[in-house]
Amino acid sequence: MRSNIKQLHEQIKAGNFLALARGITIVENELDGYESLLLNLHENRHARVIGVTGPPGAGKSTLVNALLRHWLHENKKIAVLAVDPSSPFNYGALLGDRIRMSEFYTNPGIFIRSLATRGALGGLNAKIIEITDLVKDAPFDLVIVETVGVGQSEVEIAGLADCTVVALVPEAGDEVQTLKAGIMEIANIFVVNKADHEDAEGLFRNLRILAHEKAHGTTEIPVVKTIATQDNGVGELADEIMKFLNAQKEMPEKRLHLLTEKCWQLIQAQRMKSIDHDKLRKEMAIAIKQDDFNLYAFTKDFLTTIK
Amino acid sequence: MRSNIKQLHEQIKAGNFLALARGITIVENELDGYESLLLNLHENRHARVIGVTGPPGAGKSTLVNALLRHWLHENKKIAVLAVDPSSPFNYGALLGDRIRMSEFYTNPGIFIRSLATRGALGGLNAKIIEITDLVKDAPFDLVIVETVGVGQSEVEIAGLADCTVVALVPEAGDEVQTLKAGIMEIANIFVVNKADHEDAEGLFRNLRILAHEKAHGTTEIPVVKTIATQDNGVGELADEIMKFLNAQKEMPEKRLHLLTEKCWQLIQAQRMKSIDHDKLRKEMAIAIKQDDFNLYAFTKDFLTTIK
Repeated sequence: MRSNIKQLHEQIKAGNFLALARGITIVENELDGYESLLLNLHENRHARVIGVTGPPGAGKSTLVNALLRHWLHENKKIAVLAVDPSSPFNYGALLGDRIRMSEFYTNPGIFIRSLATRGALGGLNAKIIEITDLVKDAPFDLVIVETVGVGQSEVEIAGLADCTVVALVPEAGDEVQTLKAGIMEIANIFVVNKADHEDAEGLFRNLRILAHEKAHGTTEIPVVKTIATQDNGVGELADEIMKFLNAQKEMPEKRLHLLTEKCWQLIQAQRMKSIDHDKLRKEMAIAIKQDDFNLYAFTKDFLTTIK
Repeated sequence: MRSNIKQLHEQIKAGNFLALARGITIVENELDGYESLLLNLHENRHARVIGVTGPPGAGKSTLVNALLRHWLHENKKIAVLAVDPSSPFNYGALLGDRIRMSEFYTNPGIFIRSLATRGALGGLNAKIIEITDLVKDAPFDLVIVETVGVGQSEVEIAGLADCTVVALVPEAGDEVQTLKAGIMEIANIFVVNKADHEDAEGLFRNLRILAHEKAHGTTEIPVVKTIATQDNGVGELADEIMKFLNAQKEMPEKRLHLLTEKCWQLIQAQRMKSIDHDKLRKEMAIAIKQDDFNLYAFTKDFLTTIK
């Protein structure tokens, strides 16, 4: 490890936010020292990772803000990584969420970083794995990773987090229960946010029933009602999160699963590095002018030109 | 091309459903002849692809059923590919949707196939690209690809479809508009399904406003109200779809973009083929027992063992 990177790593471990911000930038943009920084991380760390996910409109950012206010009173040191969705289309829409979080931007106990995933090209973003691992090397008590989405993004967050919180809001539609059944696998805690909404009680009841059916005699997934805009129910949510983290036994199978999936994503990102998207597009532009263009023949030919 | 695969391809092009089903199985499972089948497809085809997407609970399957009923009266030949979400957790939940579609399973004008994507490992599933291309080689008028999801799945469907229909249902929450703003980029037509719901008018109005703001003098994205369970509004939706498909000018830039993205996904799938997930997991199980385990060093070492 080069001495300036080694020094940066020491500063990150000592809790220097500027060094951490710089480290993230190095990892995000694969600048000099990127690899040696990652190769020197240790996997066992103090900080626990809390994933907060749920559909757009569930009030995730407001919920994270409320949790930050709560934990600040306990003098916890917290990092927040706000991951924009893989869709390249949502950047603008999400800026609203980010702006609302600004009340904590100057707080010395809280580190906040927004991460944009790089569009639809790479699927799950290996960068988020790398950056979360880097942040875990700093002396935080908690790292909150907030992602939008259903499906892929939720799998993503469940692969990173020691405790995954799924936030939902009351919504119309008799098929709601279908969604919730799918989500049971990754949620460690459910939040019914905007609990003052007229349909909240129905959603709460359905989630409780599903949690009960799923439990099979073991512990049921807690369902917490919140009105995050009023800090309502947030203390209870924080308690459930800490209870889950504390009760979490050594689960070697889960750790193996998570690390295997993380490794898979890292390999995928690495394997696609040699594929030049601009070059692909340029060659495609020429090829599609031919009458007998065939996508599969083109792909095969293109790959023979890559090492 | 081996003669039996050549024969199968001819049968598919002639409209033999059994041959098509077998062809899909060959592509899905990469059986003998898989590659030559794909290498002999032609990219320009009669069938137009309609993507139907939207969040779980939006009534997509009911909507597709209603469209099928409508188009059957016009003697259209239609294929439906129902793509289960990338999440490995939703299989069970979605079976309900599939079962409802069974009224058409024996109809000679309609071909239906459910495709399960293979879990969270590969991101976007290249198989769906390949299978859609194969189906387009059969003499269908329309190919409907139905996917669940927001974010990644929507990008996926927009990359396949000549016309993308986004189905939404009225839901609570003041941030709904935020989601809709993100979705504008891929929707060619909006559907407000379950239009008899109390909040439907508000959603309809918001979508109209967004469609208007987005238009900048060009054509606005149509917003259609439906109650698919009662076939209400479905004729209008079908008309808008056909209008869009007919009005669609030659758009070389769009075609280039779609083919480039498809090619990227095919390359990614191909590049990950040599990575044995079971082997990775086994080696990981041994490695994580070491005190100085580092994920990035492990990944680097693992890759050196792969050709």
